[in-house]
Amino acid sequence: MKLERTERSRLRRSHERGSFDRDTINQILDATPQCSVAYAIDGKPYLTPTFHWREGNHLYWHGSSASRMIRQSTGAEVCINVHILDGFVMARSAFHHSANFRSVTLFGQAFKVPDEDKAARLDAFVEGLWPGRTGILRPMTAQEVKGTTILGLEIKEGSAKVRTGPPIDDDEDMSLPIWAGVIPVRHVLDAPITEENVPEDVQIPQHILDYSLG
Amino acid sequence: MKLERTERSRLRRSHERGSFDRDTINQILDATPQCSVAYAIDGKPYLTPTFHWREGNHLYWHGSSASRMIRQSTGAEVCINVHILDGFVMARSAFHHSANFRSVTLFGQAFKVPDEDKAARLDAFVEGLWPGRTGILRPMTAQEVKGTTILGLEIKEGSAKVRTGPPIDDDEDMSLPIWAGVIPVRHVLDAPITEENVPEDVQIPQHILDYSLG
Ligand SMILES: Cc1cc2nc3c(=O)[nH]c(=O)nc-3n(C[C@H](O)[C@H](O)[C@H](O)COP(=O)(O)OP(=O)(O)OC[C@H]3O[C@@H](n4cnc5c(N)ncnc54)[C@H](O)[C@@H]3O)c2cc1C
Ligand SMILES: Cc1cc2nc3c(=O)[nH]c(=O)nc-3n(C[C@H](O)[C@H](O)[C@H](O)COP(=O)(O)OP(=O)(O)OC[C@H]3O[C@@H](n4cnc5c(N)ncnc54)[C@H](O)[C@@H]3O)c2cc1C
Ligand code: HEM
Ligand code: HEM
Repeated sequence: MKLERTERSRLRRSHERGSFDRDTINQILDATPQCSVAYAIDGKPYLTPTFHWREGNHLYWHGSSASRMIRQSTGAEVCINVHILDGFVMARSAFHHSANFRSVTLFGQAFKVPDEDKAARLDAFVEGLWPGRTGILRPMTAQEVKGTTILGLEIKEGSAKVRTGPPIDDDEDMSLPIWAGVIPVRHVLDAPITEENVPEDVQIPQHILDYSLG
Repeated sequence: MKLERTERSRLRRSHERGSFDRDTINQILDATPQCSVAYAIDGKPYLTPTFHWREGNHLYWHGSSASRMIRQSTGAEVCINVHILDGFVMARSAFHHSANFRSVTLFGQAFKVPDEDKAARLDAFVEGLWPGRTGILRPMTAQEVKGTTILGLEIKEGSAKVRTGPPIDDDEDMSLPIWAGVIPVRHVLDAPITEENVPEDVQIPQHILDYSLG
């Protein structure tokens, strides 16, 4: 399954690194909750880092119903990027330095999730990150859900761009006595830090010990 | 020294996490080369992940002179965000889950670095990441510099937003038998992978072994 290739989502630079494949796109979207949302106010660009989650063909993000980002993106065109830095690509020439990465850019109109669906979407957000967590938390209140707006975007227009592998130097530079290679980068999670009021007999849940990123 | 607080850079949500302090802003900008640049085309938002570097009161980024991102941002309004995820904040209620992060958002008009300054700016980019590296590389060619455009932004309008510390639950939830705390997140660099054509007697340079991120 592929997304349609449109004028704005067609890769022009290094297009061999591009992909419209849904599985590739979904894998990148699911690898991290970190994303950036761009929107326009009076034709000027604004950009907000936030968390997203995916359910099927939809991407979601949340914030205060009073948030500028939320208000200005509702029913408006947005551009969302999710990317993961996988390495620094060190060449024999400055010019051929690069980065290894997995990246997805999506376009479309953000819609507001209806009030009656918000609690289910937020549960899916929490469960998607930490399976089983909603079952142990103090339940959400109607008031909390009310003050929260969830925006959604259909995953319909956009593309992935992925770079992997070693540096690609000019042929005549390949035998120079200069170190070249890749410095791999990755996110790690350190040991959880328990909040000081947690009773001593409460264990760290397995979904937290099992969590990984990237 | 502080940036001026403007209508668009004033923090409305969680403003106690905001700062206009230049040192705070510079430290975040210098902690990672990863950034996202938002720009508008026909009033619609676009967003490109890229690398930046800072020299004094200017932020720079580079790409092909033929790149859409470069062409559309030149002389135009941009919004740039640099952020680092420091942890997942796990509360006793879903609502109070959050993230620890350091983030900077900047606004302004991007300018094109004059041709005669480009080589010096690119050297500063490489040296800023890996001190001493330009001295060991195959020198840049005029042709390479010619095909590259560097954009700059004066660091004049924008803000930092930083969250640190444990979850903040409602008072009545503090004694519930639910685990709460922080899962710290950090970027690590793994052992460099040498490209297969590098002669055996070429050592990994110290600036690569010393490099860290975040
Ligand atoms: C961590 C990181 C660092 C990078 N550093 C640099 C840098 O320093 N300099 C540089 O020039 N480029 C950098 N890039 C690549 C950058 O994101 C763009 O792909 C590139 O600059 C080409 O931009 P363009 O506007 O000319 O793209 P075009 O090819 O004209 O873009 C057309 C369409 O292609 C798709 N597309 C383009 N880029 C991406 C992407 N990254 N992910 C998903 N879809 C995409 C989008 O649908 C876009 O609308 C970096 C990317 C990452 C993830
Ligand atoms: C990793 C990460 C994950 C996040 N996840 C979420 C989430 O899931 N939901 C959510 O609501 N928010 C999230 N945030 C916070 C988000 O970036 C915004 O700060 C918040 O959503 C408020 O947006 P607003 O448009 O209402 O901000 P306003 O306070 O109205 O913004 C006004 C001005 O304040 C400044 N400002 C706002 N946010 C930032 C920032 N992040 N960095 C620097 N300056 C800023 C800018 O100058 C902006 O123009 C996350 C941030 C990070 C870094
Ligand atoms: C620290 C050193 C450098 C790093 C980390 C770096 C990183 C990158 C990255 C990640 C890309 C995007 C590649 C892609 O689209 O997949 C890029 C593109 C580009 N870089 Fe660099 N770069 C560096 C130095 C330079 C120098 C010194 C020059 C010029 C002399 C240069 C010229 C270019 C050009 C022209 C492109 C666009 C390629 C294209 O779109 O066809 N870079 N760089
Ligand atoms: C996986 C669970 C969740 C995570 C990781 C998460 C993360 C975040 C983050 C990082 C912020 C930004 C805080 C800041 O600006 O510094 C935020 C804001 C917010 N979240 Fe969540 N959240 C989660 C669940 C929820 C739930 C379940 C609700 C509602 C029931 C909710 C409602 C809100 C609201 C209303 C804001 C805006 C706060 C404000 O701007 O004043 N969140 N969230």
